[in-house]
Amino acid sequence: MINIGIVGGTGYTGVELLRILATHPEARIAAITSRKEAGMPVADMYPSLRGHVDLAFTTPDEALLADCDIVFFATPHGVAMSQARELLAAGTKIVDLAADFRLQDTAVFEKWYGMPHACPEILREAVYGLPELNRDALKKARVVGNPGCYPTSVQLGFAPLLAQADLIDAAHLIANSASGVSGAGRKAELGSLYSEAADNFRAYGVKGHRHGPEINEQLRRIGGHDGVHCIFVPHLIPMIRGIHSTLYARLTGRGQGTDLQALFEDFYRGEPFVDVLPAGSAPDTRSVRASNVARIAVHKPAHDTVMVLVVEDNLTKGASGQAVQCMNVLFGLPETTGLQHVPVLP
Amino acid sequence: MINIGIVGGTGYTGVELLRILATHPEARIAAITSRKEAGMPVADMYPSLRGHVDLAFTTPDEALLADCDIVFFATPHGVAMSQARELLAAGTKIVDLAADFRLQDTAVFEKWYGMPHACPEILREAVYGLPELNRDALKKARVVGNPGCYPTSVQLGFAPLLAQADLIDAAHLIANSASGVSGAGRKAELGSLYSEAADNFRAYGVKGHRHGPEINEQLRRIGGHDGVHCIFVPHLIPMIRGIHSTLYARLTGRGQGTDLQALFEDFYRGEPFVDVLPAGSAPDTRSVRASNVARIAVHKPAHDTVMVLVVEDNLTKGASGQAVQCMNVLFGLPETTGLQHVPVLP
Amino acid sequence: MINIGIVGGTGYTGVELLRILATHPEARIAAITSRKEAGMPVADMYPSLRGHVDLAFTTPDEALLADCDIVFFATPHGVAMSQARELLAAGTKIVDLAADFRLQDTAVFEKWYGMPHACPEILREAVYGLPELNRDALKKARVVGNPGCYPTSVQLGFAPLLAQADLIDAAHLIANSASGVSGAGRKAELGSLYSEAADNFRAYGVKGHRHGPEINEQLRRIGGHDGVHCIFVPHLIPMIRGIHSTLYARLTGRGQGTDLQALFEDFYRGEPFVDVLPAGSAPDTRSVRASNVARIAVHKPAHDTVMVLVVEDNLTKGASGQAVQCMNVLFGLPETTGLQHVPVLP
Amino acid sequence: MINIGIVGGTGYTGVELLRILATHPEARIAAITSRKEAGMPVADMYPSLRGHVDLAFTTPDEALLADCDIVFFATPHGVAMSQARELLAAGTKIVDLAADFRLQDTAVFEKWYGMPHACPEILREAVYGLPELNRDALKKARVVGNPGCYPTSVQLGFAPLLAQADLIDAAHLIANSASGVSGAGRKAELGSLYSEAADNFRAYGVKGHRHGPEINEQLRRIGGHDGVHCIFVPHLIPMIRGIHSTLYARLTGRGQGTDLQALFEDFYRGEPFVDVLPAGSAPDTRSVRASNVARIAVHKPAHDTVMVLVVEDNLTKGASGQAVQCMNVLFGLPETTGLQHVPVLP
Repeated sequence: MINIGIVGGTGYTGVELLRILATHPEARIAAITSRKEAGMPVADMYPSLRGHVDLAFTTPDEALLADCDIVFFATPHGVAMSQARELLAAGTKIVDLAADFRLQDTAVFEKWYGMPHACPEILREAVYGLPELNRDALKKARVVGNPGCYPTSVQLGFAPLLAQADLIDAAHLIANSASGVSGAGRKAELGSLYSEAADNFRAYGVKGHRHGPEINEQLRRIGGHDGVHCIFVPHLIPMIRGIHSTLYARLTGRGQGTDLQALFEDFYRGEPFVDVLPAGSAPDTRSVRASNVARIAVHKPAHDTVMVLVVEDNLTKGASGQAVQCMNVLFGLPETTGLQHVPVLP
Repeated sequence: MINIGIVGGTGYTGVELLRILATHPEARIAAITSRKEAGMPVADMYPSLRGHVDLAFTTPDEALLADCDIVFFATPHGVAMSQARELLAAGTKIVDLAADFRLQDTAVFEKWYGMPHACPEILREAVYGLPELNRDALKKARVVGNPGCYPTSVQLGFAPLLAQADLIDAAHLIANSASGVSGAGRKAELGSLYSEAADNFRAYGVKGHRHGPEINEQLRRIGGHDGVHCIFVPHLIPMIRGIHSTLYARLTGRGQGTDLQALFEDFYRGEPFVDVLPAGSAPDTRSVRASNVARIAVHKPAHDTVMVLVVEDNLTKGASGQAVQCMNVLFGLPETTGLQHVPVLP
Repeated sequence: MINIGIVGGTGYTGVELLRILATHPEARIAAITSRKEAGMPVADMYPSLRGHVDLAFTTPDEALLADCDIVFFATPHGVAMSQARELLAAGTKIVDLAADFRLQDTAVFEKWYGMPHACPEILREAVYGLPELNRDALKKARVVGNPGCYPTSVQLGFAPLLAQADLIDAAHLIANSASGVSGAGRKAELGSLYSEAADNFRAYGVKGHRHGPEINEQLRRIGGHDGVHCIFVPHLIPMIRGIHSTLYARLTGRGQGTDLQALFEDFYRGEPFVDVLPAGSAPDTRSVRASNVARIAVHKPAHDTVMVLVVEDNLTKGASGQAVQCMNVLFGLPETTGLQHVPVLP
Repeated sequence: MINIGIVGGTGYTGVELLRILATHPEARIAAITSRKEAGMPVADMYPSLRGHVDLAFTTPDEALLADCDIVFFATPHGVAMSQARELLAAGTKIVDLAADFRLQDTAVFEKWYGMPHACPEILREAVYGLPELNRDALKKARVVGNPGCYPTSVQLGFAPLLAQADLIDAAHLIANSASGVSGAGRKAELGSLYSEAADNFRAYGVKGHRHGPEINEQLRRIGGHDGVHCIFVPHLIPMIRGIHSTLYARLTGRGQGTDLQALFEDFYRGEPFVDVLPAGSAPDTRSVRASNVARIAVHKPAHDTVMVLVVEDNLTKGASGQAVQCMNVLFGLPETTGLQHVPVLP
């Protein structure tokens, strides 16, 4: 049994962690903290957990997080890095679902998140928690920066095309992405109101979105050179869960001569959570609803252009499911442990 | 031309007033106030109004509301009553879309709205602004308490049954109502978030809702005696606009012998904004979307029970459309002036 | 391992059965039939099942249903009763998710379903599959009529009040229910189109709905006398899954003196799939989404009136989850086997 | 007064035509035909039109279409071209909302619509009904091919960039578009069911969509050469109305040196139905809901890339509103006559 602490469990990634961990056979939730809701039974806030989670929220101090084997931070940016040193010293592993350990470039972090990084030396050892692209490093990690929801979909879609040299014009990638509203979190903000977001569709973050630098830093790493650049444009879909990324790249001559379907199937062969669809497919976000699977389809809409369609559940593969997948890797469990939910359709 | 002031035009009833007044042939919007957004062009907040409304928000002081012929208060409860004396003294008429002038019983007002009434003497002359039931009083009114959204639907549905003595067991009425989320207003509250309200249905206010006492005060007035009592249970529908009330009453012997379809058709004959549907119908909320019409169907699901189905757009007939209808009455215009929008379907 | 056949697995109750059975530890799906889609892999129709269900649809003849331990009929009304004799003769148990074995009164069946009953003698031994109210009979059953989605919610809500004599005026019950659109099934019908059902709310079946006679037959059985009568009015909610029933009854003097909260808690004590909420609650449909739990709250909106709020997922507790719960009872498994899904929220 | 005939008024473009024409001051609807619904009052099918449209559907023969000044075809592809000769001979003008008169290349038409063109000589004189790009030709037209919903948004977005030579790499345009479900029409098809389309997002038509060749034929015309090519990828949004197109093009050196905001503002100066938003904006589809306006924002997400965001209501500017706009041009009326609806928000 892995003893687990959750810091900040009142948001959507928190309740999704609880949904998954409640039936994970190797997980024991030891503590879940919320300064604001301390004392309230978790199931009072989320009646969906009645009968599944008996804990109450505790204040961070009571929680004895350092006694846990692993602590998940489902908190605003900046919290995990403030507590990382102490936990690591106590031998506790950390998975941060916020951005504290995603960007290796601290100047970029500071620009986009408006705070200096509190522990650059820990950041340097942190592993970016996308197991499909980073599994070996994860096995030995103490600190995991769990990827952003959009970046997960964009990286999974471009990785097979970037991992081999000279298939695409890597300097001109386009990621036209769209997310359900839960991606904005459980925060009382006007733009996330039902009457604002329902029956509507729009681009947002058009002057720059925090996931842009994260996407580009990782794509450069995958591509192995600094010439990679991706334009990232997010849109807001009137639905709760789900991310859909439509990716475009110009094919080089070599890329035009490559069997792209085979390329993708080979790249993800054996991956339990990445499903390359048959040629000609277009994945529905609902086909992965409430599951940890991403589905991918690859197309050639013109002889010199590749288009990749990627879907994931932003709260599962895009956040809490991926965090549990990372935990499984960290603790040497089969990667699918506790994560074999069948997507809920319809 | 009627010179119009709008106090607090940033919420949903405010923007709906603007949508209607922008094409009202006798309306001239002289000022729209918002302390918080003063200086911002209205169309910057609501791009839907670009090209239709050129005003900017002003602070209440600049607005010279007292120069207006009429001022609409699309504000939180308590604002209209604090400014009413001054405006009336200046000869300006008032329509309050909040609750300040709805409840004649100030003790009930104080209990449900948590503040003492600021001007009981003005309240006494205020007219409850449901033109179909109150037209004559409205013609001479200076102050109008615009009805709540739910109460409009419940009163329109029960009125024909209560206006005649001894048709129903008036002490045991049930109003099972449901509203779209815009009824909660444009406020950043967790319960109104897309991810909370979408793909969900629930009752709320089950321990008592502010519209309950308003409904009961008016139904007693319509019924002409204090024995009228209605249980009111609101529900939240995952949609933006629309109210649906399903009303139940036990029929007396006399009621059982009455042609209810004829009763309703006679009662609303000639009313431009109440449409009694043919026998056997069930109205859709979308059939009145963005229009000032309420549609009603009457049924006998058992020999001794009457069921009335009522739909309205909560922002139009349930709020701002009704307010403009009241204005038309106050100023002697044809009641349909500027209000003949065809419902938007689909 | 239980060998399972599914007849007609292309609809929503079919795919929900597959979602549940795919992770049920004692279930082995031996065959799934569809005359129309024979040969097509199930996961081609429902990509959500990729990696979970490897079967292809077969024609009914190939399926060798008689070799199964149990056959679920997720078919239109009339199919199960045409195949029941043969299967029972082969020792195969039957759970029909349609209406063939719900109504004991064959005249009522014929009136509402437009066909004579094909095997009244089998109907007589069929057990109505609501385990909470019918567990002992189910243990010995060979044929189960799985309850309708609405009737499940209405019976669970009224049962504690009817099981004791003289608590309510049983002749005047009201069930004001509302369902997500998946209740209409996966049929290409205009009324179920997105553009017809979204952003809309309406009552339907107002002249009579098939679930009315089913509700009344069962409530009479629970109440133990023919004087029970319930008015049932369904409404359509713009959401996919979920049923919400708002039930009203007039309390007798004895009922007014009863602790209703205790009554409900006692009645459902120990039931794994019925959750009586604390006093004052109002359940969300999303709090049971994709799970087999029903949640109930009981209220007294007036001294002489009881109101019961019930939510369930219409496809799970209202259909396929309940069918699997019945299977567990039929085969002596712990009733929660394979059914402990945590509701998906948000 | 213009005497108007509508052929096939039972679909969504039909009811939207009726919504608009019902309050158009110069329109008189003389006949509306539906072979299937002949005899049924229009308002029985669409209760939203009660009190606004008194006509009943008639069979095409009774309708005396040839007596009309103009006939709108809101029919499946192929109907308008079969009746065009006769109507033109009678001096009746034609606006076809289907595809019969959109594509000048009859081979392309035949390939995508599966039927030979019935009257190529009439097609040759037909004018493509996008007034902003084609006003002069429209003024003299007898036959109008009303543009597809997607093509309207894509052309309005790319036109300013293509109308001047050498601003963009016209051979590699990308139109990443998304539409509400009403774009699929009022047809009982599985993919358009609420339970299939709600809470979901996906690309479709990924192997080729009928609007692709229409877009490319027109963009080539606007660009003035055959080297223009656009990849068009439509997506389905869980909402009823609205189209959002996110357009990408690589800027040439000359394009990089151009003030794109000024380019767009100049291009559409004075257009009543195209609103170029201030720099930095991202339009919501709801900001044009139920109105004939398209809103456009232009961005440079990289120094060598232009991105254009376009929104329209697919049933209004994307179909029936545009058809009425064309009618206004054909008959010399001010172009905004009857089309000044304020968008419905929220």
